[in-house]
Amino acid sequence: MGRRYDTISFLSDYGTDDEFVGVVKSVIRDLAPHATVIDLTHGIKPFDVRAGSLALARSISYVASGVIVAVVDPGVGTARRAIAVEVADGEGVLVGPDNGVLAPAVAMAGGAGRAVSLTNLEYQLEAPGTTFDGRDVFAPAAAHLCNGVDLYDLGEPVDADVLFPGLVPLPQIDDSTVIAQALWTDRFGNVQLNVGPDDLPATFGDVVGLRISAPADASGGTSRVATRASSFAAVGAGAVALVVDANGMLAIVMNQRSAAEELGVDDGDQVVISPLDDDAAGGDVVAPVSVDLTRR
Amino acid sequence: MGRRYDTISFLSDYGTDDEFVGVVKSVIRDLAPHATVIDLTHGIKPFDVRAGSLALARSISYVASGVIVAVVDPGVGTARRAIAVEVADGEGVLVGPDNGVLAPAVAMAGGAGRAVSLTNLEYQLEAPGTTFDGRDVFAPAAAHLCNGVDLYDLGEPVDADVLFPGLVPLPQIDDSTVIAQALWTDRFGNVQLNVGPDDLPATFGDVVGLRISAPADASGGTSRVATRASSFAAVGAGAVALVVDANGMLAIVMNQRSAAEELGVDDGDQVVISPLDDDAAGGDVVAPVSVDLTRR
Amino acid sequence: MGRRYDTISFLSDYGTDDEFVGVVKSVIRDLAPHATVIDLTHGIKPFDVRAGSLALARSISYVASGVIVAVVDPGVGTARRAIAVEVADGEGVLVGPDNGVLAPAVAMAGGAGRAVSLTNLEYQLEAPGTTFDGRDVFAPAAAHLCNGVDLYDLGEPVDADVLFPGLVPLPQIDDSTVIAQALWTDRFGNVQLNVGPDDLPATFGDVVGLRISAPADASGGTSRVATRASSFAAVGAGAVALVVDANGMLAIVMNQRSAAEELGVDDGDQVVISPLDDDAAGGDVVAPVSVDLTRR
Repeated sequence: MGRRYDTISFLSDYGTDDEFVGVVKSVIRDLAPHATVIDLTHGIKPFDVRAGSLALARSISYVASGVIVAVVDPGVGTARRAIAVEVADGEGVLVGPDNGVLAPAVAMAGGAGRAVSLTNLEYQLEAPGTTFDGRDVFAPAAAHLCNGVDLYDLGEPVDADVLFPGLVPLPQIDDSTVIAQALWTDRFGNVQLNVGPDDLPATFGDVVGLRISAPADASGGTSRVATRASSFAAVGAGAVALVVDANGMLAIVMNQRSAAEELGVDDGDQVVISPLDDDAAGGDVVAPVSVDLTRR
Repeated sequence: MGRRYDTISFLSDYGTDDEFVGVVKSVIRDLAPHATVIDLTHGIKPFDVRAGSLALARSISYVASGVIVAVVDPGVGTARRAIAVEVADGEGVLVGPDNGVLAPAVAMAGGAGRAVSLTNLEYQLEAPGTTFDGRDVFAPAAAHLCNGVDLYDLGEPVDADVLFPGLVPLPQIDDSTVIAQALWTDRFGNVQLNVGPDDLPATFGDVVGLRISAPADASGGTSRVATRASSFAAVGAGAVALVVDANGMLAIVMNQRSAAEELGVDDGDQVVISPLDDDAAGGDVVAPVSVDLTRR
Repeated sequence: MGRRYDTISFLSDYGTDDEFVGVVKSVIRDLAPHATVIDLTHGIKPFDVRAGSLALARSISYVASGVIVAVVDPGVGTARRAIAVEVADGEGVLVGPDNGVLAPAVAMAGGAGRAVSLTNLEYQLEAPGTTFDGRDVFAPAAAHLCNGVDLYDLGEPVDADVLFPGLVPLPQIDDSTVIAQALWTDRFGNVQLNVGPDDLPATFGDVVGLRISAPADASGGTSRVATRASSFAAVGAGAVALVVDANGMLAIVMNQRSAAEELGVDDGDQVVISPLDDDAAGGDVVAPVSVDLTRR
C-alpha cells in the first residue's frame, strides 16, 4: 500500500457553468469520502495548456501535501497518455494528461519521482462515451491514491525523462535589451512577465522603456515608459510600473487600473525592456506617462 | 429518526457573484456542521428550470449518497410547493421547488419513494422577506435531513404521482429523418442532443446531414454535413461531427472549436438529422465542410 | 490560548479565474487542516470596498461561528492596516484590511470587541513580493486563530474606535419624498435600496413614483411607477414593483425579468421615491407601466 492522502487540489479548464467540476468532486466524494478537494481554479481558457501549466506552477509551492489533479486536455480521446507523477519523495502526486500541463509544477517541486501511465482499468470508471477523463480516469486515480492505493497499481511505470515537457518561454537578456514575454494577465489587469527582478541589468535604472507587440504584429508595437516600484502604493496615478509580484516575477502594473487594458497587452505578447534613453532615442515612445520621480 | 447523511450536493441558478450560495452553505454549516457540500453548478441561466433539470439529470448517477438540493425557482413566493423526495430506498433525497427541476433526476434514480411538501415551519428559518427559499426553506431541510430528521417530519406527505413532471422533449424518429433538439451547449461548445447513438437508423451511415433551426425560425435554418466519430481525435480540423458524449448522448462537436458557435445553435433549437444523400438532394446544404473520410 | 474555530468564511474580489482563492485555501489547509472554508463570494468588483462591505453585512447574520476573512483591498502595500476584530464575545473574528470592508458587518454583529493590527511576522508567510496579503497575512491569521492562537498574539492591540468606518449611505426621508440609493443589483436584476419597508411614509400608498438618476446626471433621470408587492408572484408581467427582499430591505424588482436592466439603474444611483400623484403632477413620468391594481 502507498501513503494515504487527505487533500486533492484541483485545477482545470472546465469552468463552473457546467456540472463537470461537480461531477468530478462527486466521484471523489463517493470513492474517498475522507478527502477534501481544494479548487485552485477552473477558469483556465479552454484547451490553454500553457496557461494551465503556469497557474499550477504558481500554486505548487503553496498547495497542501496530497494529490494534485490538473486537467487541461485538448487531446482527450487521442493517444496522449494519462499520467500520475510523484514529487518530493511522495509528499505529492500530480495527476493529469501528459501534455505538458504538469511539467513546470513537477520541476518546481524538485522533479519527478515515480511515474505511471494510468492504464489500469480497475481503477477507472466505465465511460458511456470517451470524452470525460476528468470523471472517469483522473478523479478515480486521485481518490484511490488518497485511499492508499500504490502509484504502481494505477498503471504502467513510465520513465520520468520521457514525460511531455512544459513550454515556458525563456527571456533573451543582454546588456542593452531584455526580450521578455507576457505570461499571465490576472483579474486586476497586472501582466506577469517571464523575468525576475534580477534579470534586468542594473544599468537599466529605475525608469525603463517597454515595447509591446503581439506575436504576428509587424508594426513594431506600442511603447511606454515604466517605473520600477516596490509596491502598488508607490505607483503614481496613471503611471505604468514594473513591480515584483506575489510570485517573485516582474509584472507590469498600474495603481487600481488594468495595465493589460491600458497597454493592450495579451498573454504571449513580446515585451522588450530597455533603458529609457536608448528607447526614447528611437523616437517612438507613444503616450508617455507621468513618472513618480520621488522613487528614483 | 431517519437516516443520517454526510453529503449535500447543490445545484442552482444563483451564480457566484452574489453571496447567495455562500449564505445557503453558511446555514447548512450552522445546522449540520458534519455535512460536506458539493457544488454541482450554480451557473444555470436564471429561471431556466429545464436547463437545471437536465444538468441535475446528467449528474445524478455520479452524485454521492445523501441530500441533493436543486434551486431554479422562478415561482418562488407563489403557490408552487417546496418538496423533498426520497429515491433509491432513501439512499438519496432530492430537495427543491416542485416545478419540474427535480423530476428527470428522480426518474433516472428509479422514481420517487416517499415525498413531502416542506410545510413544517419548525424546520425553516424565519424570513425577513419572502424571496430566498434556498436559505430559509431548502438549506434547513437539507441540514435537518443530514442530522437524521425523518422526511415526514419536514411537512405533509405528497403523492409522488402528482409531482410536477419534467419536460424533456422526445425526438421524432422514422426511417428517413430524426427530429432532435439541442438540449445543452457546454463550455467547449459541444451541443448535446436528445438522441442516443442507437436512435439513428443504421441506414443513415457515418455521414449525415444536419438542419438546425430556432423554434420560431421559418427560414428553414442552416444545414451542415456531420461525420459520426468515435472520439474528438477522429474529427478532422474544421469538420463537424456527431460523437457519443460523456453522458451517452449524441453531441454535435468540432475538434478544439465550438460547434455551437460555428453552427449558430442555441439550446432548444431543432436539429433534423437525415441521411446525407436525401439532405443534399434538397439543395440547401450550406457551407459544407471537409469530411474525415478515413473514418468511414 | 484563544478559542479554537472550525469554520472560515471567505469573501473577496479575487474572482475565480485566477488561482488566488485556491492558493489562500491551500495556505489555510496546510496550517489548519481541520478548518472548513465557506466561500461567501469572490465576485465583488475589483477594488469595490463598498460592494464588499455590503455583501459581508448581508451575510453576517447567517455566517457560522468562526473566522471571517474579507479581502477587498485597493490599498494593499500601502500603510493601511491589516486587522482582526472580535465580535459577539469572540464567537466570531473578522479579518481583513482596515479600509471599511469589515465595518458594517462588525456593526451588525454588535460592534467590535478586541482588535489587533496584524503586525506579528511570526504568524505570516514570507512574501516574494508585496502584493498578496490574502495569502501571506490574512490566510495565516485565520488559520492560526482556528488553531487556538490568541488574537493578541497576532499583533498590536488597536482601539476599536479608530477602525476605519463603513460608508453606507443614509436615506433622506420626509413626508413627501424619500431620497434613497441603489445599494446592490443581484444576478436576477433586483435592485436593493438603502431603505426598509417602514421608511416609506404610510401616506405614500401602494403605488409610488420612482425617479432614478446617476450621481453625475443632470438630466433629472428617468421615472417609473412602482407597485408595492408582497412577493414576486404578485407582480404583474412587465410591472415594476417594490418588495421587501430577503435582507428585509426594499428592492426594485420585476417578475422573472431584470429590473436593473429595464430601468437602467446602477449601484450608487439615486432613487427618489414619492407618492404617485405628486410625481405624476410633475409631468415627467416616462414609460409608465401597467400596474397590478388587484393588489391595492
